[in-house]
Amino acid sequence: MPKPLIALDWGTTRARAFLISEAGEVAMRRMADQGIQSVPAGGYPAAFEALAGDLRRAAPEAAIVLAGMVGSRNGWVEAPYVACPASPEAIAAAGIAVELTAGTHATILPGLSCDDGSFDVMRGEETLVVGLGLTDGLACLPGTHSKWAEVKGGRITRFASFMTGEIYGLLRNQSILARLAEEPAGDDANNGAARGFAAAKRPAGLLNAAFGARTEVLAGRMKGGEVGPFLSSLLVAQEIAGAQALFGAANHIHLVADGVMAESYGAGLAAAGIAAVVTAPEAAFVAGVRRLAAGLTR
Amino acid sequence: MPKPLIALDWGTTRARAFLISEAGEVAMRRMADQGIQSVPAGGYPAAFEALAGDLRRAAPEAAIVLAGMVGSRNGWVEAPYVACPASPEAIAAAGIAVELTAGTHATILPGLSCDDGSFDVMRGEETLVVGLGLTDGLACLPGTHSKWAEVKGGRITRFASFMTGEIYGLLRNQSILARLAEEPAGDDANNGAARGFAAAKRPAGLLNAAFGARTEVLAGRMKGGEVGPFLSSLLVAQEIAGAQALFGAANHIHLVADGVMAESYGAGLAAAGIAAVVTAPEAAFVAGVRRLAAGLTR
Repeated sequence: MPKPLIALDWGTTRARAFLISEAGEVAMRRMADQGIQSVPAGGYPAAFEALAGDLRRAAPEAAIVLAGMVGSRNGWVEAPYVACPASPEAIAAAGIAVELTAGTHATILPGLSCDDGSFDVMRGEETLVVGLGLTDGLACLPGTHSKWAEVKGGRITRFASFMTGEIYGLLRNQSILARLAEEPAGDDANNGAARGFAAAKRPAGLLNAAFGARTEVLAGRMKGGEVGPFLSSLLVAQEIAGAQALFGAANHIHLVADGVMAESYGAGLAAAGIAAVVTAPEAAFVAGVRRLAAGLTR
Repeated sequence: MPKPLIALDWGTTRARAFLISEAGEVAMRRMADQGIQSVPAGGYPAAFEALAGDLRRAAPEAAIVLAGMVGSRNGWVEAPYVACPASPEAIAAAGIAVELTAGTHATILPGLSCDDGSFDVMRGEETLVVGLGLTDGLACLPGTHSKWAEVKGGRITRFASFMTGEIYGLLRNQSILARLAEEPAGDDANNGAARGFAAAKRPAGLLNAAFGARTEVLAGRMKGGEVGPFLSSLLVAQEIAGAQALFGAANHIHLVADGVMAESYGAGLAAAGIAAVVTAPEAAFVAGVRRLAAGLTR
């Protein structure tokens, strides 16, 4: 890590840029709603300048690394997926150079693919998993489409996606349950969450358990404010149970989350008797991109 | 069954009226999109006349029985739920009389409630289950909110709802998968269904398996036309697995469905190694309402 690093986590709808010192400290950070879907054809150099031009002027000698959907078919240049099992070295080696301005290059990191019968892909999350520095372990990255990744012998061996966040939004805001849901007040969040974790243990599965919110509210046994927390906890518990079934029972997992996500997944893991080692997404990204950048310059 | 019967299956969005002969034949039928949500306060006698006035004139002596959401809190008169286990006699005995016109009454049948830890209710489906005439068995009534009902010793002992149809609609039409889905063509329906049944066997559950449609299509391994059949079959298989977990494994079940629903649930049951005894919803309703009407007049 001989010089500073400018690193972008450049997704579909958002971008985050960091100037990272040689010691690994975030010296500057920029966030913008300028995801790749808002970048016109040929517009990436200008979009990069808008996002990170002042970081470059602050550290003209910095290496530049871009992670996330910027490397997808719909991004700047497609950096083909690296198939699991994938080592950090293999991920770094598959980086693709793009020209920012005459003589200045950036490296676009690839995503990962996994084919254990069902095909799955990630872009961006691999950098966070690398940033955990695991030799062996299981990582959970909650989100609209949560990712769970298994690491063995320092390589990402398998991973799986879960539509938890998206299905929560559909059920909470667009299903028949939406009409019954109210903003949580008082103890609603705690009570709803406890009910959701309990409902997840019913044998008939998600399709049945989710409907319980309707009947319990109509029967006056659940408050409208409990519906959202109930659904969230039910889905998180289903995701955790599904990941355990896929990857095997773990007594602790590495949770990459902060704020509300860290709370709800932490509670879900605790309810399942699993300890959580929590890392904030920014810290995981910074550590991961530094590790991969070191691989690039070797 | 000493005289003809006018029976209405009067739901939230639709109503069906039948004139049933003493021998149990449907002599006249009327269908309309005049569910209870379109009936103004005090408007039920007029709505009944619009739906079934000609049936009454054809058989002025007929008994009149109304089933479904018409007996809910938002319907004509609330007919309180009968708690499971519930015999056909108990259901009939809980019917509520309403006056259609001076001197003419109809009976509104109650729904059922079930509390095996989670509270659940049905209105209308109990009549179809009664119509199956089971002593012991398990019935599946597919729909937006599918119902499974267990019958033991001639009584409906337990039942459970599944949000299968509604979650299918949300995923097919409003999720990230909607953008990838196309109308099935050629072998898409069969291929998508086979993939859905296979995906349902993956250990990580619905939240993970549903996402497979996205990654498989993006990888060029699944056609857009397969997405809908894939999701439908995945969800049906999850519902069947959930019902088996709740009610115990059955080697055959009574499927109350016709058309596309009978096909997709029949295929799902076959994929699970379960035989289906199929009854059309109209036949089940007619048999059920006759049986309950006989109980009313005893």
